[in-house]
Formats: sequence, C-alpha cells, structure tokens
Amino acid sequence: MALTPIVAHRGSVTRWSQSLIPTLREAPAEAECPSHVLLLRAGFIRKLGAGIYDYLPLAWRTLRKVQQIVREEMDATGAQEISLPILVPIELYAGTRRDRDYGDLLFKLSDRKGALTALGPTHEESVTEAVAGSVSSYKQLPLSLYQITNKFRDEARPRSGLLRGREFIMKDAYSFHATVDGVGGLNETYDKMFTAYSNTFRRCGLSFTAVEAESGPIGGSASHEFMVNADSGEDTILKCPATGYAANVEKCEIGTRPHGTFQEPPSGELTEIHTPNLPGIHEVGKFIKVKPDRMLKTIVFQVNSSSESPVSEPPPSEPPAPAGDSTSLASPPIRWILAVVRGDHEVNEGKVRIVSGLKVTLADEKAARAAGFAIGYVSPRSVNTVPNTLLLIDADASLGGFWASGADKPDYHVKHFNWRREVGSKLDEPRYVKLGDLRNAREGDPSPRDPGAKLVTARGIEVGHIFKLGTKYSDAMGFKVHSAQQQQQPVIMGCYGIGVSRTMAASVEQNHDANGIIWPMPIAPYHVLITLMKPEAPEHQAAAKQLADELSSAGIDVLIDDRDERPGVKFKDADLVGIPIRITIGDKALAEKSVEYKLRKGDDKGSLVPITEAAQRCRDAIVAAMA
Amino acid sequence: MALTPIVAHRGSVTRWSQSLIPTLREAPAEAECPSHVLLLRAGFIRKLGAGIYDYLPLAWRTLRKVQQIVREEMDATGAQEISLPILVPIELYAGTRRDRDYGDLLFKLSDRKGALTALGPTHEESVTEAVAGSVSSYKQLPLSLYQITNKFRDEARPRSGLLRGREFIMKDAYSFHATVDGVGGLNETYDKMFTAYSNTFRRCGLSFTAVEAESGPIGGSASHEFMVNADSGEDTILKCPATGYAANVEKCEIGTRPHGTFQEPPSGELTEIHTPNLPGIHEVGKFIKVKPDRMLKTIVFQVNSSSESPVSEPPPSEPPAPAGDSTSLASPPIRWILAVVRGDHEVNEGKVRIVSGLKVTLADEKAARAAGFAIGYVSPRSVNTVPNTLLLIDADASLGGFWASGADKPDYHVKHFNWRREVGSKLDEPRYVKLGDLRNAREGDPSPRDPGAKLVTARGIEVGHIFKLGTKYSDAMGFKVHSAQQQQQPVIMGCYGIGVSRTMAASVEQNHDANGIIWPMPIAPYHVLITLMKPEAPEHQAAAKQLADELSSAGIDVLIDDRDERPGVKFKDADLVGIPIRITIGDKALAEKSVEYKLRKGDDKGSLVPITEAAQRCRDAIVAAMA
Repeated sequence: MALTPIVAHRGSVTRWSQSLIPTLREAPAEAECPSHVLLLRAGFIRKLGAGIYDYLPLAWRTLRKVQQIVREEMDATGAQEISLPILVPIELYAGTRRDRDYGDLLFKLSDRKGALTALGPTHEESVTEAVAGSVSSYKQLPLSLYQITNKFRDEARPRSGLLRGREFIMKDAYSFHATVDGVGGLNETYDKMFTAYSNTFRRCGLSFTAVEAESGPIGGSASHEFMVNADSGEDTILKCPATGYAANVEKCEIGTRPHGTFQEPPSGELTEIHTPNLPGIHEVGKFIKVKPDRMLKTIVFQVNSSSESPVSEPPPSEPPAPAGDSTSLASPPIRWILAVVRGDHEVNEGKVRIVSGLKVTLADEKAARAAGFAIGYVSPRSVNTVPNTLLLIDADASLGGFWASGADKPDYHVKHFNWRREVGSKLDEPRYVKLGDLRNAREGDPSPRDPGAKLVTARGIEVGHIFKLGTKYSDAMGFKVHSAQQQQQPVIMGCYGIGVSRTMAASVEQNHDANGIIWPMPIAPYHVLITLMKPEAPEHQAAAKQLADELSSAGIDVLIDDRDERPGVKFKDADLVGIPIRITIGDKALAEKSVEYKLRKGDDKGSLVPITEAAQRCRDAIVAAMA
Repeated sequence: MALTPIVAHRGSVTRWSQSLIPTLREAPAEAECPSHVLLLRAGFIRKLGAGIYDYLPLAWRTLRKVQQIVREEMDATGAQEISLPILVPIELYAGTRRDRDYGDLLFKLSDRKGALTALGPTHEESVTEAVAGSVSSYKQLPLSLYQITNKFRDEARPRSGLLRGREFIMKDAYSFHATVDGVGGLNETYDKMFTAYSNTFRRCGLSFTAVEAESGPIGGSASHEFMVNADSGEDTILKCPATGYAANVEKCEIGTRPHGTFQEPPSGELTEIHTPNLPGIHEVGKFIKVKPDRMLKTIVFQVNSSSESPVSEPPPSEPPAPAGDSTSLASPPIRWILAVVRGDHEVNEGKVRIVSGLKVTLADEKAARAAGFAIGYVSPRSVNTVPNTLLLIDADASLGGFWASGADKPDYHVKHFNWRREVGSKLDEPRYVKLGDLRNAREGDPSPRDPGAKLVTARGIEVGHIFKLGTKYSDAMGFKVHSAQQQQQPVIMGCYGIGVSRTMAASVEQNHDANGIIWPMPIAPYHVLITLMKPEAPEHQAAAKQLADELSSAGIDVLIDDRDERPGVKFKDADLVGIPIRITIGDKALAEKSVEYKLRKGDDKGSLVPITEAAQRCRDAIVAAMA
C-alpha cells in the first residue's frame, strides 16, 4: 500500500497589490527586441546597470519554474546538483590559460590582499579542481555534476535585455569518464544529456530545434546547440525538411553538388583589369561588370604548426613521426592553404579544417604578404608560386565557364580565369589540390541527408549547448585516474550548458503578440489570473478567495488582481503580463453564479463558467497544456 | 470536492557511487571548529580559496532544504521573492556612502570600461532603487521583498569554514511602509518577520534563542538577533530563566541594582601613586595592590555634533533650535562624556547613548588630550576641569567605600577616591552628572524583567537579524511617496537577514558527536540511508530498490550506499555524514525478511524490522521529527 506523502505541495496565491509588478506604458527607447521591451513593460525586470537586471517577482517565479524543470531533467540523467563559488581564484586558470583566452570578457578583481580573482563565466576549472581532488580511480567514474548559478561576462556590447547580459543565470553541467564508448562512457552521458535537453525545452513549452554545431577549437568531437525557434533570433539554422537534419551555419553540411573536371575550355583570353580603390568583392564586380557568382574568392589560411596537432594526427598507439626532420619527408609540410569559393559564398573555416585535415586559422596578413600572397587580390594560381601551399576548391567554384579572379598583384583582377590553363598540372596532384565542401550552407542547397531535398533556413536563439570536451581540461589541469590496469589515464569530460535567464527571454521572443506576453503554461509565473471588477465588494472577494483556495490546494498558482484600478487598466495589464488563464469576477456573471473564463492564447473571446466548475476547468486546461 | 493535484512531489533516490561524497579521515589542520572539521570530513564542502567553499552534493541538498523552509516562511508573511544582481554599480552608494563605511570589506572591480562595481554584501541600495523607481504612492505600500542569493564580504580573517566566509548564502528581506504603527505599518511586518524567523529555525530543527540586540548606529529602533544555541558559538547571550528575556551583551539590560548616595564617608586620605609603564588596569591593580572591582574605570566619549542628530532630538514638528547660537542657550552643549564603571566591568556604548540621550563615539585620543583629558589616567574629577563634560556613573561604581582611580595626570593613580570629596557639588546637578546602567551585563546580574531572578549566560551563533531601519536608506536615496494628504512623505523601512550557509554550519555546531554530524530531520540531505552489505547481490539490490521506491513516492529522500567498500568503512561514513535514519540490508536480516533499522541520533542500537513495514516505520519517524 502506498504511503501518504510527507508533504503536500500547494500553489501560491498572491494579491497583485502586495507584489511589485510595475507595468509600463512604454519601454525605454533602448529596448528593441520583443523580449526586452515586453519584460520591461510587463514589470518582470528592471535595469540596474549595463547588461545587469533586477528579476522582479514575476520574472523570478518564471525563472524558478525553468530552473525546476532543468533540475528535474538533470537529476533524471543521474547528475548531482552542486554549487561552486562565483569567485574563482586566478591561479585555477594556470593550466588552461582561459583567463587570457577570455580576455576582457572575464570580470576580475583584486581582494584586500591583492589576490586576483575572477567572477566565473563558466566553471570548467573549478569543477575539475573539485573532482580531481576527490576522485582517483576509474571506479569512481562516471560522475556528472551540475549547478544553476549566476554567471558573469563583461560583454563589450551588452544588448537585447536578458539575451546578452553581463550577469545571467546558467545551468552548467560537467561529466567525467574513463572511456568514450560503452557503459559509463562519455557518449552514453552525452546522449542522456541530449534527451534531457530535449525534454527540458519541450517541458518549458517551447518550440525548439536541436542542431549540429561546430565543437570549436578543440576539434573532432560532437556538439549540439538547442535553438528556440523565433523569427527575431540572432542565429540562422539550416534544416532538411525531409529528414529533420538541422545544423547551424558553422556546421551545416551540404549534399552532393556537381563539380568541374578542370578540363572545361576557357571562356576567353585571360585579361587583366586595373581595379584600384575598390574595398570589396561587390564593388569590384560592379566595376568590372561581373556578378559575384561568377567571381572566385580565394582566402588564405595558415597552418598552425605549434603545440596543437592536426586533427588527422595518427592515434597515439602508432609511432609518431620522428621530430625535427620534416625536410626529409616525402611531402613537404603544408604551411598555407588557399580556400576558393564563389564570390557570393562564404568560406567555412571548420570545413577548411575538415577538407585539409589540418588545424588552420585565417592567415596573418603581414606574414602572408611576406610569403608572397597579394592579399585582397590572391588567385588560385598562387599555389604554383608560394611553396608549401595547399589549394582547396569548393565544388561550385570548380565548375567551368567564365570566372573573374584576383590577379595576384595589388589593384588588379583578371577575367576569363580557366582552371586548367591558369593552374596547370598541380590540379592532378591530390597533395596540392583538393576539391570539396568549403562554404557555408544556405537556403536551397541540397540536403546532406536526402539527395532530393533542399535545405531551408530558420532563425533561432541558442538556449543550450552540449559538448564532448575530451581531455582538454583534464590534460591542462593534470587530472588522471587509475585505470583497471593500474595505470594513470586521462579523464574524459563533457560539458553541457543551458541559459536559464535566456530561456525565459527566448520564450517571450517566441510567444507574444501586439498586446503582450503569452506564457507557455509550464513556465508562466502564475497559471491563473483572477481579476476582481470590484475589489472592495465582499462577495467578489469571497468568490476569489474560494476559487483561489481550491486551485492552490491542487498545486495551481494564482494571482489575484485586487487593485483599485479601472477595468480597462487591469485588462491591458493582464494582456501584457500574459498569465495563461484569466478568470474575471464581476457582478453580471456572479448574478448567474458564474465567472468569466478566458485564455490568453489564441482568439478566445471568453465564456461564462459556473463558479462551481471554474476550478476544474482551470485544472483540466493546465494539465492539458503541461502534458 | 478537492481537485487532484497537478503534480506529485517525489523524493530523491541517489546511489552513493553516482554522487560526489569525498569523506576524509582527517580534516586539514587549519579547520578548528566542529562544523568546519565535520563538513570537510563528511564531504559536504571543499575549500577553493580563502573563505571560499564548493558546496558538494550533500551540502547543496541541505542548503536547498534550508532555503525552502526560509522561502515558505517568507511567503507566509506576504513577502515576494525577487533576485537582485550580485553586481552593484558604485553610483548606487552615492547617497548612503556605504561603499566608504564598508571599506575593505567591500569587493570592488573595474569593468572593461573602467566603471567601478561592487559585489553586493547586502542589497539595501539595490532594492530601494528598484522600489523607488516603481512605487510613488502610499497606496502601493506596504511591500516586502526578499531574495536568497550569494553575498560577498572581503573579510580580513576568513575563518571557521562557513561561519565566516567571504562568499556566503544569505536571505535578505526588505519592507517598505508609509507608517510605523497600525495596519500595514513597520511594526506589523516586523512582528510577522519575528514569527517567520522563529518558525524558520524551529522548522530547521534547531534550538535557538531570539535575543534583543543593539540596532547599531541608526539608533532608537528595535532589533532582534536569532542565535543557534551552541557551546562553540562566538557570541554570548544573557537570559533571564524566570521570564525568557534574552539579549546579547551589547543590548542586555540589568535589573535594579543598589547605588550610592554620594554621601558615603571617605575610606582614607587621597593618595597619589606613581604607576609608570603599566599597560592596563590589571597591571595597575597588581602594582598598587587593589583588585579591579575596587577601581574606577573612566572612559572618555565624544558627542557627534555632525549631521547625525541626537536620539533625543525633538520630533520634526517642533521648531528646531536656531542654528549658530549654541553659546546663548541656557545649558552649554555637551561635547564630552565620561563613563565610569568598576574596573572589572566593561562600558557599554549603547547604554552610554541611552543614559546620555546623545549620539556618542569613543573619543579621538588626540582631541581628548588636547581638551585636557589625561587619557589612560582620567578620573571622574575631570568633569570639573574640562568644560562641556557630562559625567555618567554606573550604579556599581557609585557605591561608597574604597576606590582607586586614575590621577588625571600621566603615570599616576590615586587611592581612597571619594565621590563627594573629589567631585563635589556637580554631583547634585543632573545637567552634569547622571547615574544609570552603563556596563555590559554578565552572569549573576539581576534580571531586568524579574527582580528575584539572576541572568545566566549561554553561547550562540547568530543566524538571523531583524532591524527596524526607519528612514535611513529612503532619506539617503531620496525615496518618498505621496501621502493620503497628497504630500511627499519619507518611506519607512525594515530589513531582515538570515545566514543560510551559516545556518547549515550552526546546525552542525549544535548537532554532532565524536563520530560525525547528526542532522535534524528537516534539513538532512537525505532522510534515509540504505546501506547494502553486498552491493553486488541481486536480492540486496532488489530489496533496496523496492524500499527506495516506496519511500520516494511518499516524498522521502533516500541515499543508497552501493559502494564496493568494507562494511566498516560504510558504517564509519554513515556516522560521519549523519543521515537520520539508517537501514542496513544484509544476508542475516534478509533471511528473516527483515532489515536493520537504526537512528543516527541518541544511543539507538538498531533493531530488525520486517521489510514490509520498514517504509512505514521510516515515514512515521520522519513525520514525528518534522512536527
């Protein structure tokens, strides 16, 4: 037989007159995006400084509901909640050097003893320190830890209210593993986190897309972003309507495209044109009367020869190439990469890495000039003139026909560029020339998952990001555990973030109309708003109290608008703050032993419901909306 | 008919092997007090820096339970929860000057634009800014707001683990009123807060004392501290066993004591003694062979003539004294105060204020010397030699008999000091001499509430403090509201703090034994610990799972020790972490379809309970302990 629970959860009942809900007619002029405007106007937040906001009672209620959903889903993965200090002693960054990498984004202070301390932007170092100090054997792994705390980034341009603030609420989780695969491995936890993130945003009542993302400078491993779908979003997502594949612009693959054979005949004689003082490809195109889609854009990258090793490095079990004798190898080392795309396309750095198999960054302009590249006027021909150069050509740029290009000397371009004629025999040497997918995807490109489908674009707001970190932090901080074979092995990590305050703002971006916010039921500050037409009338008060009691004993949160204001003001404010269910108590309905019941969402015109049935009606609507 | 709740609360079930509970044999040498040692050893916290601690999973569970109790009690007062930024732009302190008053205690940083920002130690300024910007009429008051957030103080000597850290969790509440008395007034909310605080600490399972406290430099208004009773506490409390009256040392009144008449005959001729190079009253006493309780200690205070007005200032409705003509008044203004107590007693500055009716601080030594006081050797006779001096005499020091005193010149004391002979006729002028209660109370003093009872002392740890602030912050920040008479009136405030992380530590100070922590049921990280003697045995696992399911569905939190460790290690750890109820699943008991049931508290030796009754037994014990 089931035990009686030790506690029963009651919903909150709040009188508007006792709370602080300072609704405004107008938002300050600086507020632009819908969530910024509406959260200010509806009295959810108040600006205290640049990128710094007070969470007033309504905002805090919504934020706590988001936090609770996040917490439940994190707990379901087996992660344990902790709380790490906001203060992070600077010594912790000694191994990871993130204090330098973050640069001005990191808030730093000196304490009374002159010790330098950062305000944590995320807590990879702190959590690794804690686990490294407590765990020494593979038997104690896997371990997942998370926290929901204020984070700090000194943004150069804080903007869009809570979407890019300097102090914000984030859930950050970290997992620690002895293996990548199998039971207890990184991949198992990563998949659980993927599910938890999907559940979290679904339970928050949000329409979202999980997209494949670039994993950043650590290379190789997987990463997904969770985007709340919203036309006002900053990020572009590409989706395959046929398969559900979705990725961000940095990551999105493109399906098979036709490419050239380098045997196509020239379109005419190579002609040099003087093109001085033209700042960009569009200006050049206009001047020489060529559309960007018939021009070649050649971007120079440099190969990082430093401590960072190429992605294609052989696994550690194979003997590494002997050091210090690179000149004796059959292929000379590649130092430069030319990436060629069509003038109307954008080179994708991640794809340059993948196609080249090398760690690359955009070339330092001075060094590239010194090597012989006419930066701004480079053509693919440079592969023949600058030693140790690899030429990468995007499929669309490899086709035949007319092409314009830089002329490899300042202030000159050429017309009638022909691949075979201008580049010659190196085109046949895969050591020097590779053909592939080098550019950002865009709407209309073939889907990488279904040959017949075309990619479509959508806008989104990033609210979550999960990463397979690998050993980046454990290596940098010297965190190893004993393996089953009693050897020291590096610890493999994952990290998983959710922007909690950002999720609230993203929900408003997605769910609002001209009159105000429309909260999804699960994260609405209150489920039900009871508006008293005559707050001073005892029978109105009594009806409100009885209804609120019934609702709260079922765990339903109720806001009672008991203000001494005109009904017009109250209804406008009700639209603005966006509580999902609205009950109005007035003389007319009360005479029929009824109340008015109206949903904020859609075009509900409202209807009379017998007062004895009102609570049940609310409960049914809430349960349906939370399912 | 009652509605079915929209959500059911389930308890947590955690496997020890999945959590991070790094128990230690020994605490670091620097840990001294029981809570610091035990929270470190039991794997609740980990030091990240000076006064900065990670809250590991067990600590965070306890802290969240404390927070939830605080939240429910705050909500019950009608206060609304908010969350203010940790970052506080320094401009906010312009009116209150608390940035200066806090001095080095305030953490400050410069952002990338050079703007100075503090990390909030408490948030009077931020909350007043928010409310002042949103509330303009008395009709919108009263209003109570609270938050539970990390606070920051750059302590010179962070110590005792969580008891005096540099980053800590605090609940701070603020109330705003148009009146002090009546419905909606400060006193009403103050009383509700007093009740809420009492409920909070009672519900946390703590033995505590609410004591009257000094309200600090703002004067006049009431203040109470809530002290967790613990012998290891830093603070001394005085209590009247007969009436329940309790106060801290700064505040505690003393009941009626006998006092002198200033007519007592001299004990002998006044004799000067050379007393060079004696640093304190004890050394002087030894040298001149007089016990401290027969010596007079005369402390010089100065009257603050600045913007701060005396407590006894007439209410604003009376015309203020004309400025700049103080010389023309009948009584010359008092500039100096001599407070005389017995050599073995301590002068109480708050009582000096009360008896004098003036705002005073300890005299600046240089200024006092310049005025003619022989600092270190002052006697009550100085009232006759330094103009504008008021002499206050504690009852015990006013008695007749033998007295030694300073001689009003460096390196000299006198014996056989006699009040009438040495001070003379000023003793009869209440303008210059007052008799009263000027010293700290101590054990054995008469109770101020019951003439027959004597005060007793106890030790405690301050975990809560409530204040009637008055208009200190609203005046400084120019926050006024329209009154019912359409006039601008100052807003009256109260503030109310609870040290949340300190409450956890104080609970350990109060509840532990030689083997570890003994958590009170309501704030234990888990209610029940199930220890598996053979974690690998399927029948042990099955029994644990079934029991844990039953318990968690009743809202009970369960930790399962499934580690592959020797039973001795597990039992030692169980004592250390202090989960209140311990169920052990082993072969012998299981053969009798039973489990072992044992309480952490007291001398429970454990007993066998049929497995079918174990959950109910746990539930009954939990409910009883939470009542």
